[in-house]
Amino acid sequence: MEFVSNFKSHGGTQFVVNHEALDTTMTFGIYQPPGEGPFPILWYLSGLTCSHVNVMEKGEYRKIAAELGLIVVCPDTSPRGSHVETHEDNWQLGGGAGFYVNATQEPYKPHYQMYSYVTALLPEVVADNFPADKSRQGIFGHSMGGHGALICALRNPSMYKSCSAFAPIANPSESEWSQNAFKAYLGDDPANWRAYDALHLLKDGASFPEILIDQGTEDTFLNDGLKPWLLEAAAADSKTKINLRMQEGYDHSYFFISSFMEDHLLWHSQWLNR
Amino acid sequence: MEFVSNFKSHGGTQFVVNHEALDTTMTFGIYQPPGEGPFPILWYLSGLTCSHVNVMEKGEYRKIAAELGLIVVCPDTSPRGSHVETHEDNWQLGGGAGFYVNATQEPYKPHYQMYSYVTALLPEVVADNFPADKSRQGIFGHSMGGHGALICALRNPSMYKSCSAFAPIANPSESEWSQNAFKAYLGDDPANWRAYDALHLLKDGASFPEILIDQGTEDTFLNDGLKPWLLEAAAADSKTKINLRMQEGYDHSYFFISSFMEDHLLWHSQWLNR
Repeated sequence: MEFVSNFKSHGGTQFVVNHEALDTTMTFGIYQPPGEGPFPILWYLSGLTCSHVNVMEKGEYRKIAAELGLIVVCPDTSPRGSHVETHEDNWQLGGGAGFYVNATQEPYKPHYQMYSYVTALLPEVVADNFPADKSRQGIFGHSMGGHGALICALRNPSMYKSCSAFAPIANPSESEWSQNAFKAYLGDDPANWRAYDALHLLKDGASFPEILIDQGTEDTFLNDGLKPWLLEAAAADSKTKINLRMQEGYDHSYFFISSFMEDHLLWHSQWLNR
Repeated sequence: MEFVSNFKSHGGTQFVVNHEALDTTMTFGIYQPPGEGPFPILWYLSGLTCSHVNVMEKGEYRKIAAELGLIVVCPDTSPRGSHVETHEDNWQLGGGAGFYVNATQEPYKPHYQMYSYVTALLPEVVADNFPADKSRQGIFGHSMGGHGALICALRNPSMYKSCSAFAPIANPSESEWSQNAFKAYLGDDPANWRAYDALHLLKDGASFPEILIDQGTEDTFLNDGLKPWLLEAAAADSKTKINLRMQEGYDHSYFFISSFMEDHLLWHSQWLNR
């Protein structure tokens, strides 16, 4: 593990860290609040084209994380590196578009194991190197990262104590945004995509106590890529409660995300400190 | 005036606007809080190499501005355009380095009138197009923009009701950062620089009731370019009160600025709502 940078901010420290994982060098951001800890770990998964940097600069999470005593970890959205297939000309596949799945297909399989990275590899690194309480983890994210947070929580309801999402891709198997990536990473058979699709997980019986979702009404991707109301409908027959809030006038940007960041951190803090 | 973009954020709207001024097209950011107004106007002047974008993305001012009911205007730091001398290879002169002076020297004179732009031209544009109360204006800024805020306030103590700065250049006439630019914009005679140098303005009898300054102790530019303690010393003999706070462990970045943004907006709000 190598510290790339550390900035004092809101009384705590915003670190950027490099480490070796997925047969390459991975980078993540981590905010450690002031105090001794151990602190609960809140995972923020970013959307397409993003790295750890976008939310670190625009997310406005540090003030509230400092007040609530939360470690916030912001992983990259894919493996990177000259030996990694990244498709620089395609924003929906490869670099910046890992979709939080474990690829089974070549040439992605050796590096694109983002599901394992987020749920297993990186939690070990964080627990070993920061004053983190691994028994209290929450997860949230935006867009592709909202999808990521949902599938991580639905598949690991005892590992995560809280889950929320900003404008998540509810049904990536059916969305034009993600279908090509799912095919490339997981193969042609949609049956192999279900474990990475929140809507299908709900239909197949997965559950999580309660999930907060904020969605802007002016989000241009709302009806094509996102469709969060599908989750609400599917959850009606399940043990999962979906708390979907349509936010009037907001779009898909960090101007939207930052507006509701405090609500989400308060949400997670309540669950993580029960 | 042309709206480039508008984003709903924290209940209000973050606009980006183009308009014709300084014989070119200028761009600024302006945040309008929720409600009817009229709202006080708070000016944020950015530092070297920045445009309106840096603070708009990283400044974390919208949540608090929304709560306090402040319009926050973020001008560019220089004129731009293919017909403007911008010295792309020099970060301390030209584009991104207007230093908030009115240039008297060629080839800068036609465009580099940033002092008039910030104190006269742009306030008219804002007052004419937004629910702004021109009788209540405050000004603050960072680094080169901290210098800008100080000279604007010290030269116009009846126009601005409040002033603060993050890590300002206290004495630009003597700083290696700014001397070349002052020479280029204002000519070789340092006597012509005094009206744009906060330290000299204080020594020459200018005053402002009270100025809040936050400065990080780990700022690598502290002893070379900034030296805010010079202002404290000069103000001791004047009617100006300098409230200089040395902030342990903080550097020169927006991680520092955003940490104390709430304090500064509260400071301005108190003066603007007296």
